Amino acid sequence: MAVDRFLTRRRKLLAKIRAEKLDALLVTSEVNVTYLTGFTGDSSYLLLGPDVETLISDTRYDVQIQEECPGIETYIRDSSEKIDVSTGKVVGKANLRKVGFESETTSHAQWERFQKHAEQVDWVATSQLVEKLRMVKDAAEVAEIRRAVELAERAFRMMVASLHPNMTEREASFELEDAIRRFGGEGVAFDSIVAVGDRAALPHYYPGDRRIAEADFLLVDWGALSPGGYRSDLTRIVATRVGAAATHRFRASTGRLSPKLEKVYKVVLSAQEAAIAAMKPGAACKDVDAVAREIIKAAGFGNNFGHGLGHGIGLEIHEEPRMSPISEDVLQPGMVVTVEPGIYLPGWGGVRIEDDVLITKTGCEVLTSVPKQLDEIPTA
Amino acid sequence: MAVDRFLTRRRKLLAKIRAEKLDALLVTSEVNVTYLTGFTGDSSYLLLGPDVETLISDTRYDVQIQEECPGIETYIRDSSEKIDVSTGKVVGKANLRKVGFESETTSHAQWERFQKHAEQVDWVATSQLVEKLRMVKDAAEVAEIRRAVELAERAFRMMVASLHPNMTEREASFELEDAIRRFGGEGVAFDSIVAVGDRAALPHYYPGDRRIAEADFLLVDWGALSPGGYRSDLTRIVATRVGAAATHRFRASTGRLSPKLEKVYKVVLSAQEAAIAAMKPGAACKDVDAVAREIIKAAGFGNNFGHGLGHGIGLEIHEEPRMSPISEDVLQPGMVVTVEPGIYLPGWGGVRIEDDVLITKTGCEVLTSVPKQLDEIPTA
Repeated sequence: MAVDRFLTRRRKLLAKIRAEKLDALLVTSEVNVTYLTGFTGDSSYLLLGPDVETLISDTRYDVQIQEECPGIETYIRDSSEKIDVSTGKVVGKANLRKVGFESETTSHAQWERFQKHAEQVDWVATSQLVEKLRMVKDAAEVAEIRRAVELAERAFRMMVASLHPNMTEREASFELEDAIRRFGGEGVAFDSIVAVGDRAALPHYYPGDRRIAEADFLLVDWGALSPGGYRSDLTRIVATRVGAAATHRFRASTGRLSPKLEKVYKVVLSAQEAAIAAMKPGAACKDVDAVAREIIKAAGFGNNFGHGLGHGIGLEIHEEPRMSPISEDVLQPGMVVTVEPGIYLPGWGGVRIEDDVLITKTGCEVLTSVPKQLDEIPTA
Repeated sequence: MAVDRFLTRRRKLLAKIRAEKLDALLVTSEVNVTYLTGFTGDSSYLLLGPDVETLISDTRYDVQIQEECPGIETYIRDSSEKIDVSTGKVVGKANLRKVGFESETTSHAQWERFQKHAEQVDWVATSQLVEKLRMVKDAAEVAEIRRAVELAERAFRMMVASLHPNMTEREASFELEDAIRRFGGEGVAFDSIVAVGDRAALPHYYPGDRRIAEADFLLVDWGALSPGGYRSDLTRIVATRVGAAATHRFRASTGRLSPKLEKVYKVVLSAQEAAIAAMKPGAACKDVDAVAREIIKAAGFGNNFGHGLGHGIGLEIHEEPRMSPISEDVLQPGMVVTVEPGIYLPGWGGVRIEDDVLITKTGCEVLTSVPKQLDEIPTA
């Protein structure tokens, strides 16, 4: 089963390699190598063409490769040979003339070394041949992402249940990771963001020593890594009451957000819901981005939403397609993307609401289900 | 204080930029940007020259930059502009002609975009200008690495104390991470390796569901990330007795390793100790590697030590210098490197012993202190 899936992917890539009139493609991105072979180690390249299929790796991974991708042809180097030298040998032995390389994941220096060690070859820069395949998830990948979503959501419930006023942002982020692992996940999909009050104005904040009760809300941006290596990515606001320090317990929200938080939250939520409603096969990513952006702009926060609306998720936390004003991608069935508009007000805080959305044949399916309506916001 | 340290580093780099006869260097490596400015976010470049010093970032990091590196000049883009376009604008405004770029961390595709967006500029490939500065640690960095070592060692003691026969590799690795955080560390320096029995033959194994009691020893390769972002990296063998499942407790080793494990362990330890004895300013890294490699070869395991002897540690877990047969580096005071010879026997297991070593003015100092003599091996 699993082997078939990787073979299918390599066959799809082969069709692209032929269409580009290349003798082979040198896959240098570690994630792309994993996607195409199932091998989960690093520092390895795949050379793939109609007449060649060789995984170029080193002695550290000899046994692992036999276990993870039995049957694949390998070239194993030891520490006396650099990988560009090995690559030159493999390319030379296969007698190739026109070889593509992944220009987005091959450094300028490595490209120069390829030229040196295989000077007979015409090295052709390619862009995102594998990434464009990875944009559209197969059934096994969608199942893995659903698992990553489930792990993240269970962990969030545990983390919220564990919150107490004196807990720090950092401790809350550890609770998330601990819970993900307890439920069988590999860990976090990325370093969780737990940001109290004005810290939420920093879209990429790293959790620190702020305590939960130091402001009237916190922002949590987190995700889980599934056992099969796929990722989820969510963001929610948790309301807190400064007075909670006295009671040490949590109550369901009764709509007692501060007027400013409620106002900003409503704008972000309506932008997010409108964007999701616009998502279907054929929709341009930049148009979906514009739907959310226009709503935020009309509410007077046009200068407070500086990042793109969302991005693909899968083996990586940020992958194609991108939903931003400059994206040229178009939604297709099988894509899984985040939808995460935000409004950031320096000195006060920020609100972002993020869900993971699968594009279906007729529209889309929101894979995430943590409540987000105004009267559902968890309150600490 | 902290600001001075970053200024000092930028001044040292400026001297190199002048020596290379460049008008400026575009620093694209995120780690190098952190090293030079203190800014810990990603997706940002630093353009540095005698007449220019601009951090090119985006709106997500606007506030964070003001907090982490106050006073630095910035160019902040929003999501409607790509970073290569911003770079072209900043370079153009500064009126530069000859600009270096980091060829090892700039992709071929990004290099082509720089040429397009600043076509008046002569882009010059540079290699490791900042990495060579980072090889030699300043006092604050050595202190951070000591802290990372201390965190790792305390966590190891806790993990060993927590071991029980039914614990899985994965659970043991989570214990390590949990303990590091409990003691104030940011987390692990890299994904810990906990490998039971024959799994230890895979130098880069990822912890799985093997149970501690399934073989008579396990290999643990772990490290901690200090609050300031520096890393440690250690490896030790823990002996176990299959019969331990009955007693559920640990005893100090009484030399009851299997004869094969004892034989292999002795070879690796003598190789490691001999290599450390050879470490001092002026020693060639490849010669130190050869000291260990020859001992392993003489014992008949020459084909079972496929990786290099060690590598620098710091902000990254693998950095310059490299200690391998093909390294051209020479040890200098202030370098901190791992020393980690290993012998790997597929189907049986592997032994690796790893310490972190600071090169001093007269020789070296082993920063790590977890016992490693044969009669000190912890037994589960």
